[in-house]
Amino acid sequence: MDSSITIFGDWGTSRLRLYLRQGKSVLDRRDGPGIGALKASPRETFLELVGDWREAKPSLALLCGMVGSRNGWQEAAYAPCPANAADIRQRLLHIDADGLPVAIVPGLSCRNALGGPDVMRGEETQILGALALNPDLAKGRHLLALPGTHTKWVVVEDGAITSFLTAPVGELYALLREHSILAKAAPGDGPESPEGFARGVARIIEQGPARLAHLIFETRSRQLLDNLPKDEAMGFLSGLLIGSDVAATASWFGDLGQVSLIGAPALGALYAQAIAAHGGSCVAVDGDSAVLAGLSTLSPAQNSGVHVLA
Amino acid sequence: MDSSITIFGDWGTSRLRLYLRQGKSVLDRRDGPGIGALKASPRETFLELVGDWREAKPSLALLCGMVGSRNGWQEAAYAPCPANAADIRQRLLHIDADGLPVAIVPGLSCRNALGGPDVMRGEETQILGALALNPDLAKGRHLLALPGTHTKWVVVEDGAITSFLTAPVGELYALLREHSILAKAAPGDGPESPEGFARGVARIIEQGPARLAHLIFETRSRQLLDNLPKDEAMGFLSGLLIGSDVAATASWFGDLGQVSLIGAPALGALYAQAIAAHGGSCVAVDGDSAVLAGLSTLSPAQNSGVHVLA
Repeated sequence: MDSSITIFGDWGTSRLRLYLRQGKSVLDRRDGPGIGALKASPRETFLELVGDWREAKPSLALLCGMVGSRNGWQEAAYAPCPANAADIRQRLLHIDADGLPVAIVPGLSCRNALGGPDVMRGEETQILGALALNPDLAKGRHLLALPGTHTKWVVVEDGAITSFLTAPVGELYALLREHSILAKAAPGDGPESPEGFARGVARIIEQGPARLAHLIFETRSRQLLDNLPKDEAMGFLSGLLIGSDVAATASWFGDLGQVSLIGAPALGALYAQAIAAHGGSCVAVDGDSAVLAGLSTLSPAQNSGVHVLA
Repeated sequence: MDSSITIFGDWGTSRLRLYLRQGKSVLDRRDGPGIGALKASPRETFLELVGDWREAKPSLALLCGMVGSRNGWQEAAYAPCPANAADIRQRLLHIDADGLPVAIVPGLSCRNALGGPDVMRGEETQILGALALNPDLAKGRHLLALPGTHTKWVVVEDGAITSFLTAPVGELYALLREHSILAKAAPGDGPESPEGFARGVARIIEQGPARLAHLIFETRSRQLLDNLPKDEAMGFLSGLLIGSDVAATASWFGDLGQVSLIGAPALGALYAQAIAAHGGSCVAVDGDSAVLAGLSTLSPAQNSGVHVLA
């Protein structure tokens, strides 16, 4: 049994989660600032947070996410698709932090289904984790979705990430909700209503995703003319954006089939609803569990055996 | 010859333009704050700006734009489409400002081509002005576009506004340019490059407007992976947004044919380029001239004769 001590880290734009591990057990957990909210350098921030954990003599700290971006600790060049766990493991960026070996997981790049360049950083680890947690996904062709600020749609084939496509749906929603005239037509600041969301999804199915920019204006006009309450208008806007993302993805991937949804449950539930409206079904994978499982898969020490067997 | 003294006003969200007129001549012009930037009430602001003009004993002040909105001076209820000049003139909202008669032009509402509620306020006056300036437009069926924060596509038939559709393209562009992670991938703050714009328009023609939300992410990924300069990325984003608006409109209106473009020349030139890429052609109508011509058309005193003849 593996009893080595390692540190795992999920270091994104808005938060850092560090885990002290012995074998597969988590001994301790600490949170820190995201790459977008640092007050000191990534190296200083990391070493201060790790602190007394070093007494346990960890053999490695394995970090994924924006820590490997141009604005992070050190840039870990994108690995090209198709890429499986072994490909990514070979491209870990190894650096030294005051005597502690640190490895940073590279992001992935691809030419996406539209022929454009596409990138991810952090999601690759969650995807490999989902494959480790659900071995059925590691065989055959499957569609995964990681909803968020920049939603990723991912195709895996026989355990390798072959292609993906980014939809900045969460960012568009936040921009429109916080800053637009469209949202300001009526006062209020409640949660989005489920009825509004369902209506937005249905409107996209009725008119097609090519109409998105025109339909978005209804967020305002229905408040002005039909007295649509603000919470319904915001639900409607969310339904339009997520609905058009799912509709355009369905036409790209073909039959949606069963989609594995990785990430936060609340946003995942909205995607599940829109996917169901397009004839697909969903299984949910917890995002934090996926990160830990993915880092396990990518850990050079723990997985050298798996690598040889593959 | 008509030598009556009137005041015309174009009072939008961001600015007020007032004209003192005798017959068809402009005697004086004054600018003031938009409805969105008032420091006093609309009534006080108006009376202070008009000031000594009242010595000329104007018979009426005719105002169009957001002055007639819920947040303006007093709400002038939307007139339903189809509506021609006579219909709108009958629905002028008459109020008194310290002894000076004021008439506010109502906005228009319709069920648009997508079956949704749609509204405009201010553009109706420019459209009627374009018809007055170009009598060919007052016969048959024509497509007009008023590019802006909320671009309006308008169908006129035999002098009446029968239908319109709003695309909040300018607002989406400004939100993405100012606030998004997509725009921030590279530094720089120059004007959009024409090459980037043309590439964005071409990308939409290639992939279809249903892909807009996915293609928008290329604004970021092309900066990260292809070292696209910021000015080209912003041009590309503008081309995607305007290109998808034109593409979706073309599928709604049928053959674009000759489109009359009302408004600011710089933005109009971008729309003209995207319309040409979709096989249409354009004629430009100056926005300020259109407002004045439209207010002339709507002025009860000056146009009672026209009304009787119609």
